Amino acid sequence: MSNSEYDTNNIFAKILRGEIPAHKIYEDDETLAFMDIMPRGEGHCLVIPKSPARNIFDMEPDSLIAVTKVVQRVSKAVMAAFNADGVTIQQLNEAASGQEVFHYHCHIIPRHDGVKVGPPGIMGDGEQIAANAERIRAALIS
Amino acid sequence: MSNSEYDTNNIFAKILRGEIPAHKIYEDDETLAFMDIMPRGEGHCLVIPKSPARNIFDMEPDSLIAVTKVVQRVSKAVMAAFNADGVTIQQLNEAASGQEVFHYHCHIIPRHDGVKVGPPGIMGDGEQIAANAERIRAALIS
Repeated sequence: MSNSEYDTNNIFAKILRGEIPAHKIYEDDETLAFMDIMPRGEGHCLVIPKSPARNIFDMEPDSLIAVTKVVQRVSKAVMAAFNADGVTIQQLNEAASGQEVFHYHCHIIPRHDGVKVGPPGIMGDGEQIAANAERIRAALIS
Repeated sequence: MSNSEYDTNNIFAKILRGEIPAHKIYEDDETLAFMDIMPRGEGHCLVIPKSPARNIFDMEPDSLIAVTKVVQRVSKAVMAAFNADGVTIQQLNEAASGQEVFHYHCHIIPRHDGVKVGPPGIMGDGEQIAANAERIRAALIS
């Protein structure tokens, strides 16, 4: 598959189609936000567009703007939800940058002073992730 | 200073006022893009808003959108300019996340397969950075 192609069977496409579950925290016509199941920090979540896009190179402008607005909103929510000291936002494009799921996504990682980001690729505890999702949802509506 | 305040003497504010130089690659009414002088990869550059904003928490929506559009444009340009395999985009908020200059900025780091991002805080070679800026400018207008 060429780097420019969109694979409709990527895991986020399956989440969008409801074929596999996710800990959702926010949804509108253009975007979905949900928990990363391999969190690199407590409350690590993702915002994706509903439109298919492999990464930033093929994102449509409207979709890019919609996701960015939600990233800002969720960033504020995780600060409150986890009494965080900061937020790291990361958006990876192509395998050379560490992208593993080829549907555009922004990582939002709450940070605390003196605490490093954890390693990638380690499955989190499902109950803890569900509880963190609830904390973010509550912060988003408060 | 509280975390919510904007310091008008931060280094990017000084660049915007022309008080200190920068290797500029793109500029419009709302945004400025220029080279990071401590590059973590060849072609590492930054996009900032012209409006004062400490980080994502106080970014005005129009400014956020303007910066995001330029980030996408510059990301495509660096892929071409450095024959890159990917791009890492990072946006840090507050010291807990590694933010060092308290004016909102997005890092754009061209990536090549198998090459890790370099360490932070190491001054790059000025001539090399100037040459890389020229490569990005050329890619932006081609």
